[in-house]
Amino acid sequence: MSEGPLTRAPQLSTQTWYNTNVPVDLLELRGKVVVIYAFQMLCPACVSHSLPQAKSLHQYFTADDVCVLGLHSVFEHHDVMTNEALAAFISEYRLGFPIAVDAPGENGPIPQTMQRYELQGTPSVLLIDRQGYLRVKALGHVADLPLGHWIGRLLSTTHEAPSEPPKGDALQACLVNGRCN
Amino acid sequence: MSEGPLTRAPQLSTQTWYNTNVPVDLLELRGKVVVIYAFQMLCPACVSHSLPQAKSLHQYFTADDVCVLGLHSVFEHHDVMTNEALAAFISEYRLGFPIAVDAPGENGPIPQTMQRYELQGTPSVLLIDRQGYLRVKALGHVADLPLGHWIGRLLSTTHEAPSEPPKGDALQACLVNGRCN
Amino acid sequence: MSEGPLTRAPQLSTQTWYNTNVPVDLLELRGKVVVIYAFQMLCPACVSHSLPQAKSLHQYFTADDVCVLGLHSVFEHHDVMTNEALAAFISEYRLGFPIAVDAPGENGPIPQTMQRYELQGTPSVLLIDRQGYLRVKALGHVADLPLGHWIGRLLSTTHEAPSEPPKGDALQACLVNGRCN
Amino acid sequence: MSEGPLTRAPQLSTQTWYNTNVPVDLLELRGKVVVIYAFQMLCPACVSHSLPQAKSLHQYFTADDVCVLGLHSVFEHHDVMTNEALAAFISEYRLGFPIAVDAPGENGPIPQTMQRYELQGTPSVLLIDRQGYLRVKALGHVADLPLGHWIGRLLSTTHEAPSEPPKGDALQACLVNGRCN
Repeated sequence: MSEGPLTRAPQLSTQTWYNTNVPVDLLELRGKVVVIYAFQMLCPACVSHSLPQAKSLHQYFTADDVCVLGLHSVFEHHDVMTNEALAAFISEYRLGFPIAVDAPGENGPIPQTMQRYELQGTPSVLLIDRQGYLRVKALGHVADLPLGHWIGRLLSTTHEAPSEPPKGDALQACLVNGRCN
Repeated sequence: MSEGPLTRAPQLSTQTWYNTNVPVDLLELRGKVVVIYAFQMLCPACVSHSLPQAKSLHQYFTADDVCVLGLHSVFEHHDVMTNEALAAFISEYRLGFPIAVDAPGENGPIPQTMQRYELQGTPSVLLIDRQGYLRVKALGHVADLPLGHWIGRLLSTTHEAPSEPPKGDALQACLVNGRCN
Repeated sequence: MSEGPLTRAPQLSTQTWYNTNVPVDLLELRGKVVVIYAFQMLCPACVSHSLPQAKSLHQYFTADDVCVLGLHSVFEHHDVMTNEALAAFISEYRLGFPIAVDAPGENGPIPQTMQRYELQGTPSVLLIDRQGYLRVKALGHVADLPLGHWIGRLLSTTHEAPSEPPKGDALQACLVNGRCN
Repeated sequence: MSEGPLTRAPQLSTQTWYNTNVPVDLLELRGKVVVIYAFQMLCPACVSHSLPQAKSLHQYFTADDVCVLGLHSVFEHHDVMTNEALAAFISEYRLGFPIAVDAPGENGPIPQTMQRYELQGTPSVLLIDRQGYLRVKALGHVADLPLGHWIGRLLSTTHEAPSEPPKGDALQACLVNGRCN
């Protein structure tokens, strides 16, 4: 979690979207709390913990309050985590929320949005408040209780926030510089 | 959850307290969000779901923000769910938050606080906001995500609240008028 | 697990039985595999892991093949883990297999059957083969896979057995000489 | 489970093997109990339940007793569940037991071994006894207790067997003629 003054959430740089007719623009989501799950379809902790949680969020909250997005940020095994593979994955796992493919990096394996947000691996959870500020950036799975708490805070407040952002269980993450733990 | 105007949370009517040197008075908790778990030590869903969650809340939130209380509201098997039995239970399950024994009912098996709050069984979860209003009364276990969300809302707001309170999984509860499900 | 020659399973020394009209005599169970769960109703690992497993065994195997027994071996908190409390516990947790109260020790807190079998705490799982030999004595919860494997072996064999008996997760047990872990 | 006389387990028809230097021949496994998990890397129940169980079996049993094999039987999404994708999947999920790619069907989407064994979907669990007879064919995930029980029986016996084979939870399977449940 970045210290210091709040920063606006950078725009997403995406290639393809699933489960939505029009690409999602963060600017148009002002007024809502946005939860973004950066994942890879071959990341075990993403599949077992974070994407099921994303489905729960998508079902529990109304679309006017909370927008749940998936971001397929592939930084390894690019040849097999293709758009076609992702489409089959989304279908088999019955993911119903909008999912974007992070635009491929121009100078290396790290995709563009992942670079902009300086994500260290997958899963990563991003929380953006109603004013468009990035409030949480957690590597690894975040448990339901702290995540629900933070979303509740962000739904109610403007810029006031808890002092401690929720932490992910990075021990189970796939890291940019290493294998999946 | 009662509709209509907000109601002040009734005072607790208690007999004995554990894990605290002085009895807890709800009036002195103004400014904090209070989470009360009404339970029975022989209620399976209380033991397997709600009390572990109470421990998690007690560990996750700071005491300045959230106060977690247990309330042993015995409405059946009074002869074996005694204070001595509860003390052993608290020790073996390593419950560290303040726990009160609900004062025995004067005209029947339902204890006094349980009557005042019109609880239908155990577990029941009560959420009281910073101003002392009762905001949630749920029968059965409430999942971490909606509970965390509601606590987050109550930590931030004054009287504004989500329209839908979280619901418990009453299918697993012990009901006042029946066996444990 | 005792090394060396096989030993006959000692007789149970019991006080009261539940869920059976006549006390169970191990001698009359020759020809069946017997699984005995020594437990205490205030032992967390017993309640969360071992007794649910006992219920599963009782449902899965036919009574001609496998006999599942509970043994309430109280070595602490004797004043609250009474027969009346156990009866309420059995009712609320809907335990349907025969359960005996281990006869109180004559010279100390350890009950008689627990002494005979030299059990170190609860939960303990005992497996007795079709010929009445004690084949497994494990402290702590034994996972379903090794337990199922051993029962399968004992259902098929006479005296031949796997070299390694299944091990319990003693880290979660209540020990005779200490608190519950 | 086929009724009537026991049938020899058909040979596997495979394309590529992982985690083994030489292709596995069922004939050379006589004397061991063989557990085969037919799976697809995009089948949710395979990923969440059956492959973790296969890992547990592989760790728990000695290689002299039980041989655990994976069989990637792709009957849908052939274009994305390629050998390269499977190799990445095996690496990320840290599967250590031998895994074969079921040879593609010559007349349709169903691969050859899947046809020979008349499997209805994934996951499917196959148990082959020490003499090479197919003893269990279950669609869907089989719980640890019945699976362990059956393996124990097959480790001890020759042709004698329990009357009821374990059943899988087919409600969660991906079926040949339909979507994943």
